[in-house]
Amino acid sequence: MRVELLTVGDELLLGDTINGNAAWLGRRLAERGVEVTRGVVVGDGLDEIIQAVGEALGRADAVITTGGLGPTSDDLTRDALAAAAGVALVRDPELERRLRERVAAAGRTLQPMALRMADVPEGARVLANSAGSAPGLRVELPDGPVYALPGVPFEMRTIMDEVVLPELAERAGLPAVARRTLRTAGLWESVVAARLASVEAMPGVTLAYLPDRSEVRVRVTAAGEKPSELLGEAEAQVRELLGDALYGAEDETLDRVVHRLLAERGATVATAESLTGGLIGAELTKMPGSSATYLGGVVSYATELKHRLLGVDEALLAKEGAVHPDVARQMAEGVRDRLGAVYGVAVTGVAGPEPQDGRPVGTVYVSVAGPGKAFCVTRPRLPVPGTGEESRAALRRMTVVHALDLLRRVLLGLDAEPGAEDAQKDREESG
Amino acid sequence: MRVELLTVGDELLLGDTINGNAAWLGRRLAERGVEVTRGVVVGDGLDEIIQAVGEALGRADAVITTGGLGPTSDDLTRDALAAAAGVALVRDPELERRLRERVAAAGRTLQPMALRMADVPEGARVLANSAGSAPGLRVELPDGPVYALPGVPFEMRTIMDEVVLPELAERAGLPAVARRTLRTAGLWESVVAARLASVEAMPGVTLAYLPDRSEVRVRVTAAGEKPSELLGEAEAQVRELLGDALYGAEDETLDRVVHRLLAERGATVATAESLTGGLIGAELTKMPGSSATYLGGVVSYATELKHRLLGVDEALLAKEGAVHPDVARQMAEGVRDRLGAVYGVAVTGVAGPEPQDGRPVGTVYVSVAGPGKAFCVTRPRLPVPGTGEESRAALRRMTVVHALDLLRRVLLGLDAEPGAEDAQKDREESG
Repeated sequence: MRVELLTVGDELLLGDTINGNAAWLGRRLAERGVEVTRGVVVGDGLDEIIQAVGEALGRADAVITTGGLGPTSDDLTRDALAAAAGVALVRDPELERRLRERVAAAGRTLQPMALRMADVPEGARVLANSAGSAPGLRVELPDGPVYALPGVPFEMRTIMDEVVLPELAERAGLPAVARRTLRTAGLWESVVAARLASVEAMPGVTLAYLPDRSEVRVRVTAAGEKPSELLGEAEAQVRELLGDALYGAEDETLDRVVHRLLAERGATVATAESLTGGLIGAELTKMPGSSATYLGGVVSYATELKHRLLGVDEALLAKEGAVHPDVARQMAEGVRDRLGAVYGVAVTGVAGPEPQDGRPVGTVYVSVAGPGKAFCVTRPRLPVPGTGEESRAALRRMTVVHALDLLRRVLLGLDAEPGAEDAQKDREESG
Repeated sequence: MRVELLTVGDELLLGDTINGNAAWLGRRLAERGVEVTRGVVVGDGLDEIIQAVGEALGRADAVITTGGLGPTSDDLTRDALAAAAGVALVRDPELERRLRERVAAAGRTLQPMALRMADVPEGARVLANSAGSAPGLRVELPDGPVYALPGVPFEMRTIMDEVVLPELAERAGLPAVARRTLRTAGLWESVVAARLASVEAMPGVTLAYLPDRSEVRVRVTAAGEKPSELLGEAEAQVRELLGDALYGAEDETLDRVVHRLLAERGATVATAESLTGGLIGAELTKMPGSSATYLGGVVSYATELKHRLLGVDEALLAKEGAVHPDVARQMAEGVRDRLGAVYGVAVTGVAGPEPQDGRPVGTVYVSVAGPGKAFCVTRPRLPVPGTGEESRAALRRMTVVHALDLLRRVLLGLDAEPGAEDAQKDREESG
């Protein structure tokens, strides 16, 4: 099964919009085992769309289009498909009824133009859109089927997952699949992949690695007669092999996991930041309701403020400078005490591009102070990707992940666990 | 002049990479008056590239390709172009020499494979790459020219701007252009556009609006016999019409402008944040060397910390809650005093998705305390785009821009200026 993607819209040719829909579709289809052989972008022109659809079906078994299904006069995909099929557009009474209902429910007046969204090429199949107004369409042309999806990403994705992907997989005789995304922190992609070699070798199981900052998401896809069972087996193996580097699944981001762990313990956290300038606090307040566990923080960017606001030993700062493990530890303890939190998280380091106090760029110390003691993880050199400002930004983002992950590990008591040393070793190797 | 873009790479079809190169090229060409009629993506296959180039030249006057010019075996664009032209690949001695020099200068060993980057289709023109190793190529096929550019964005952009764009413009008989990007804060795109209607009407001048958060960049392009002079006239008009909402040009971001203004005055700043959780501090520490003017800050997320860490009046907090203009003002004064900064910047507000202390989502107060007095800008309701977490994130980003912009205005003494009221009115209308 070879599929071509056709994205319609002047805004894409003009570069006002980046083609995220094509990337999403490409990834989705590849994971499902459907080969995408070409992607094409054309503007909002009737002839251009007709020509591109014809060419694409000359090469591939099926075409998926996105865009051009909205209510305005430059939405021409449905007209183009009707012309390509040599049929008229007819109004679908059921679509019209639902459109009127949606508009009435929103307290708005139906614009006559909007009724275009109830028009379908004669003989086309309507692909229900549970997420919005513009339905998808399936039009059978002599050379193969065209699946037309709206350009609004959320609507496009919904129809794709609910209707198009299962249908294409069935046409291609692909086995059923089940899929799950698992999240890791603190390991390089290459380390994660090396650990999971035995899972990759499982028949019917494929793994995709999605690296981002110091996190790697692992998407596990299981295909076969009983995909959910196979997925369960694969996931159990992944969890065993990644151990405590695995922190969550699906949309459970690191900040959410930390908030959940804190809430479960009735605990709170405060932050003391240097090189990150407030990014850790910003990450911990991304989630609605984060005030239940996040109290606040201090950005002690100037060295002198580490003493004045957080109580870091003046002699230590004078002797060692601001970038030192004991400074990180005292910052964590200081913010915990002064803000009255159960846990304090602190970072100090050199984001660059210039060295500081004799420490090279990438030197970062992360510390967590809790009711028992203060933990400090030394990262003598985080890898420095890119150069100059790019590397500065990347280092700051990586430091945020390391800080949240250390807090997670402390909350779970992982530092005292057997096996943590192995993980720690990997972590040190991989930054 | 009709141009098609051909992007080469499996990673694009698989969706592992979003096609940012095509978007950048589309925008660049459109601004220069060159029409992009189609964008095509193919994988790393020799036949696919040859076929796609042939088809594209059948429709358009010229083709620009990106990707597939690197050193590895799946970089096949140069092979495909040689095959399409019916010529052999020959090693260019000058390219080989420069490649060896680059590798030696970096202290590395030249991999034999890397020499592929010195191979060019016989008769092709080498397009100098001042930014990296892989040169661009211009190959003349019977139906028109192909400009092949590397996939690394920075290198692609450099060759495009230095070589390809001027050449295409000359071939198309387009007039010379000059271009400049001006930056505004605090005005909606529609307000900026309405104010600049008379500039848009200038013959030879085109304006592009690039909105982002609460900032709008205006890209002014002047085309004609003396484009620099025309650009100068247009820029002067834009500056007059936008007044003090215009804060910088080109890459001079708002945080850079604030740092520059502070440095010029020998002044420092400290931040007190609530709903932004540290984002303002993070923005003010993005730039290398920001420690010269940014001292640090307090994230007083919990209401009680506004009193304890910043000295906000307890009775005021008890009576009015945390979201009140006087709270913002006292936060700014408190952080200025306690951190010993010349200026204090503070924000408090409701990021949502739930109301707080009886204030609706989008209520935001921004305050700047300076040596003279404390300024406070009341934004009773920032517009709330999207829903839930999306709107929360957008509100936080907008608040950062408003805070930095108020600091800029205070540093420039703009609040006392005539004309500021007009701008303020627009600002209130436009959030």
